[in-house]
Amino acid sequence: MTIRVAVLGATGTVGQRFLQLLDGHPWFEVAAVTGSERTAGRPYGEATRWVLDTPMPAAVRGLTILPEDAPLDTPLIFSALPSKTAGAIEERLAAAGHVVCTNASDHRMDPDVPLLIPEVNPEHLELIAVQRKARGWSGAIVANPNCTATGPTMVLRPLHDAFGVSKVLLMSMQALSGAGYPGVPSYDAIDNVVPYIGGEEPKVESEPQKMLGTLLDGTVAPAPFVISAHCNRVPVLEGHLECLSIGFVRRPGDAELLELLRSYRSLPQELNLPSAPAQPIILRDEPDRPQTRRDRDAGRGMSTVVGRVRPCPILDVKLVCLSHNTIRGAAGGSVLNAELMYAQGMLR
Amino acid sequence: MTIRVAVLGATGTVGQRFLQLLDGHPWFEVAAVTGSERTAGRPYGEATRWVLDTPMPAAVRGLTILPEDAPLDTPLIFSALPSKTAGAIEERLAAAGHVVCTNASDHRMDPDVPLLIPEVNPEHLELIAVQRKARGWSGAIVANPNCTATGPTMVLRPLHDAFGVSKVLLMSMQALSGAGYPGVPSYDAIDNVVPYIGGEEPKVESEPQKMLGTLLDGTVAPAPFVISAHCNRVPVLEGHLECLSIGFVRRPGDAELLELLRSYRSLPQELNLPSAPAQPIILRDEPDRPQTRRDRDAGRGMSTVVGRVRPCPILDVKLVCLSHNTIRGAAGGSVLNAELMYAQGMLR
Amino acid sequence: MTIRVAVLGATGTVGQRFLQLLDGHPWFEVAAVTGSERTAGRPYGEATRWVLDTPMPAAVRGLTILPEDAPLDTPLIFSALPSKTAGAIEERLAAAGHVVCTNASDHRMDPDVPLLIPEVNPEHLELIAVQRKARGWSGAIVANPNCTATGPTMVLRPLHDAFGVSKVLLMSMQALSGAGYPGVPSYDAIDNVVPYIGGEEPKVESEPQKMLGTLLDGTVAPAPFVISAHCNRVPVLEGHLECLSIGFVRRPGDAELLELLRSYRSLPQELNLPSAPAQPIILRDEPDRPQTRRDRDAGRGMSTVVGRVRPCPILDVKLVCLSHNTIRGAAGGSVLNAELMYAQGMLR
Amino acid sequence: MTIRVAVLGATGTVGQRFLQLLDGHPWFEVAAVTGSERTAGRPYGEATRWVLDTPMPAAVRGLTILPEDAPLDTPLIFSALPSKTAGAIEERLAAAGHVVCTNASDHRMDPDVPLLIPEVNPEHLELIAVQRKARGWSGAIVANPNCTATGPTMVLRPLHDAFGVSKVLLMSMQALSGAGYPGVPSYDAIDNVVPYIGGEEPKVESEPQKMLGTLLDGTVAPAPFVISAHCNRVPVLEGHLECLSIGFVRRPGDAELLELLRSYRSLPQELNLPSAPAQPIILRDEPDRPQTRRDRDAGRGMSTVVGRVRPCPILDVKLVCLSHNTIRGAAGGSVLNAELMYAQGMLR
Repeated sequence: MTIRVAVLGATGTVGQRFLQLLDGHPWFEVAAVTGSERTAGRPYGEATRWVLDTPMPAAVRGLTILPEDAPLDTPLIFSALPSKTAGAIEERLAAAGHVVCTNASDHRMDPDVPLLIPEVNPEHLELIAVQRKARGWSGAIVANPNCTATGPTMVLRPLHDAFGVSKVLLMSMQALSGAGYPGVPSYDAIDNVVPYIGGEEPKVESEPQKMLGTLLDGTVAPAPFVISAHCNRVPVLEGHLECLSIGFVRRPGDAELLELLRSYRSLPQELNLPSAPAQPIILRDEPDRPQTRRDRDAGRGMSTVVGRVRPCPILDVKLVCLSHNTIRGAAGGSVLNAELMYAQGMLR
Repeated sequence: MTIRVAVLGATGTVGQRFLQLLDGHPWFEVAAVTGSERTAGRPYGEATRWVLDTPMPAAVRGLTILPEDAPLDTPLIFSALPSKTAGAIEERLAAAGHVVCTNASDHRMDPDVPLLIPEVNPEHLELIAVQRKARGWSGAIVANPNCTATGPTMVLRPLHDAFGVSKVLLMSMQALSGAGYPGVPSYDAIDNVVPYIGGEEPKVESEPQKMLGTLLDGTVAPAPFVISAHCNRVPVLEGHLECLSIGFVRRPGDAELLELLRSYRSLPQELNLPSAPAQPIILRDEPDRPQTRRDRDAGRGMSTVVGRVRPCPILDVKLVCLSHNTIRGAAGGSVLNAELMYAQGMLR
Repeated sequence: MTIRVAVLGATGTVGQRFLQLLDGHPWFEVAAVTGSERTAGRPYGEATRWVLDTPMPAAVRGLTILPEDAPLDTPLIFSALPSKTAGAIEERLAAAGHVVCTNASDHRMDPDVPLLIPEVNPEHLELIAVQRKARGWSGAIVANPNCTATGPTMVLRPLHDAFGVSKVLLMSMQALSGAGYPGVPSYDAIDNVVPYIGGEEPKVESEPQKMLGTLLDGTVAPAPFVISAHCNRVPVLEGHLECLSIGFVRRPGDAELLELLRSYRSLPQELNLPSAPAQPIILRDEPDRPQTRRDRDAGRGMSTVVGRVRPCPILDVKLVCLSHNTIRGAAGGSVLNAELMYAQGMLR
Repeated sequence: MTIRVAVLGATGTVGQRFLQLLDGHPWFEVAAVTGSERTAGRPYGEATRWVLDTPMPAAVRGLTILPEDAPLDTPLIFSALPSKTAGAIEERLAAAGHVVCTNASDHRMDPDVPLLIPEVNPEHLELIAVQRKARGWSGAIVANPNCTATGPTMVLRPLHDAFGVSKVLLMSMQALSGAGYPGVPSYDAIDNVVPYIGGEEPKVESEPQKMLGTLLDGTVAPAPFVISAHCNRVPVLEGHLECLSIGFVRRPGDAELLELLRSYRSLPQELNLPSAPAQPIILRDEPDRPQTRRDRDAGRGMSTVVGRVRPCPILDVKLVCLSHNTIRGAAGGSVLNAELMYAQGMLR
């Protein structure tokens, strides 16, 4: 039995990714899309400047775009709304009984909102009961993290469990698609690196600790480590590549560390969720991998690819990780969140 | 009075940069060029695939390319030879009385070879006397550092003097030109980042300490700090942009640190050397500078541009620096080394 | 029943495309690969620098690379050998009874060698009988055309049949992958266009006439029109985009022309060949399509995408067409050639 | 004696080019700048997002941006206003006695407005008398042509004079900067070609005939040849490269044609105008030149670089030409127009 879903902010790049990933989904069926005043009332196929490299799914071409504040009748809603705009709309919908899986940052750090990567902290879904009780909602808001925080958090999960992470120094080389569309002007991008992304570093420096935190009595105690981030925009289309130096409470042995990364599997793999990659972490042995273009689509964009694991002369370990920013780091992450809820009977 | 110079390995990209920078030089005049077996004996203008964006200097077009092992009669020699090849040839020429300013890595870490950035450690030229005595040479070898080590070392000089550097975590985004020509295949470069550059990290992790080391009794005691480097190749043509997190013995105040960087001047500026930039370090206040394409030519490619100076939650300070890899980081660095020697009467 | 095949020149980029496209093929199974002296004798998975963005097929990793002149026991051979090298080797194999489907240019213009696009001139396979008789071979050589000639020839087929093509002025913007690997240095590619590709224009100006020519009594009379080509290399990874101005014997009506392009289907579609796209020509109505990156993968890289059909003030009609140069224009074209032969019982 | 000038639309990319080129100009001094409502009233240095790779000229940082409709007191005005907006404002200023040298397209095809390239049709300045008489203006409007029309028109001038041009088939590969800033989104530009630029082809197909037309009795009779254009956007920052096939009334001999191109000089060279390049046309002999990045700055961006001159099997001659689109094709073209007027005593 399929569940009808709506996609908010469906004409933007993350909205388009949602529609692309939901096309032919075994459990979810796109029944409604919303858009800005400029596009509301028009058929999606006409009003949307489709920018992805695969064709617009036929099933959504004819959907009439609803205004962002329209009442919806789908139990599940994916939100690709821009931050700031998203917050109030999502609250209203959750209050009205909808489960809202959102990519927006507005509620990510709310104590009663699960900030979820299904492989990392599925147990945080228990916060929904807290959220409902506190807010008197019949629906819920569940957020996926910032795209740049996603890959490192996936990698840190098994390492933190085994050795205790104490410090993470992180340098990102982020794709242009992360800025949406039209996003970064080409005149700023070609033959250039911009060592700054507004608002990014504070998110990257705080979200992983919440996700790796411990849930006790309805509260998440953030994992007690510190992150320092340098975020950069480089001229690639998709895929955030990040260099990490990590300090641990207990320094891991080399073989032990590699084996942990190589063998990591989690609940979505056990449950065989439709969007779950066979391997959440893929460890590459070659000295020059992962490479952004060649590895970003691993696991249909849902795997985190890790390489160059080696000692760090300052902290303990250095490595490189790559995560697809608009699939695992945005729409795909949210879809997997909803799949986990579905599999656990949290969506009727 | 001009000094006649030869350029070794003149047909490669660094060789071409030497010829470009020496064109119209007030003190030095290119009198000879050497090349591989394939090109030796032919006129430079015919045998060379000139790849720079400015035209080949008219003065070198007609020079006959000499073989790499040809005897030379110029007092000063610039070496753009590839590492491994360079070592023995440079030794032979130094023994024969030539001053060899080299971009090759072979002799950089030799205890009696100055590894020189004129703004950073001009006093290390005293090693030449040690070198001559030890090796029985009438000439000398003087090296400029690795391109990726150059910018950070410039930035660390005033900071180390004032606060004592203890740790440097460094992440580079390096230009394609650093790999020479043909270098990186375009099929590996476009829409891609390669998180590995063979042999680069060990150089970046050791050369700065030598340059910032103390010369005492003819020996350089390396500066006692540790560097951890992540080196990456990004799709830009020129300019190495690097993110640094720096730990100090004494934590600097914000204003003090900025003022030190902003006001830094050194011997080449005092001596008004022809290739010396007015400011060896240019501090930018905008949140999104330096940018690779827009700032790499600052000071005609000889300045290091610094920005985003801010606290680091793990070490003490974070910042971004940019240095032109084939000008200041290679040929331009070597030319400035020779200018310093000339100004100090070390070239007759 | 599957047919065992060999791939010659299997370690290069076209060779890799063959292996990628043959992975899981319903009719063909890769049983042997050949390579240069440098790689021969080693396992394919170790000796090959795999450059494509999908992983190396598991089935070929363990194959031992044979030398280029090894005797082979597969009835069907795909040749990705470089031109010049290819000619003699392919002749020897055809003489020994193999069917050789080649991407090399050496034999393309031989009068008795089919230069084949299955949608365009499937009847030219009759040349094989001529070839066998003339050369005393039990095998055969069948060539696919130059990648830049492929898209235009597809587009010209229905137009030539209906209106008679008299003149074609053609300007190409060709992908970097067309130069193989390492191919174009990134320092020549980024932020640059090179208006020259060695040896390309003569091929583009002669191959289409052979393919659109009439087979009579064992001889192909080339189609009597003239082509003028301007070939350019632009910084894109895959996909040749071409602007055409076409003159006709009978000037077509607008609607008639569009309908011909839109409805074009041919033998491979009828036979439902595994690699045949549903539509050999896809006509786009938007003013700004086809775009190289967004449309090159149409029909899994086997469709030619056409747009901007409009009157030409000098010749009759202007349009833009796009064809994937390493799929339809190289390995995919050759595989489809073999599929046509298989479907017609020409491979035992 | 310097002339005070104003720049309209000074914060956009063409406006920035005007300020860059006028910095240190021997005859003209920027005294006023105008901008949109958003920026008017603020200091230029604060309100402007400077996007060029050289620093903002110090002299303009402090100028207060005037609103677009402000009265001005400079005899000479450069207009970088967007088309549509430009027309009425420029008319008002010309009526008020200002000489307006404009890059906007609004008045280019007005019969009494000189569409001027100083090397091509300096005599068309006589239209100013016609314009003043017809419109009752004491000032004047002088336009420079579309960037894509500029290079071909320069090349056609000597050829048309000698052989009579009858047909031009033209295919452009245009730079991203031509779309202004923010202009083309990077997500549309990287690894892509867009075969369409709105409104471009009609300009390219009509402006050259006006410039190469004959002035008789105050009217320009357009040159009687026809142009067919294919305009494409390719991922380069600056420089429009164009492939031309040209038909002539009298077919030129090869040597004759090359000599005409090589030796072409015109009035700006005679008058030694400050922005005039030594050679308006630079003929390259190498098979692979001009290349966009390597040749666009020839003659400080004011020369047109020509190469690959060869017979065309359909028309008479094929060649490639390159012109810098935001220097010669926009701001630099307009500045040279004003210099010509100054040298001829038309600016008081």
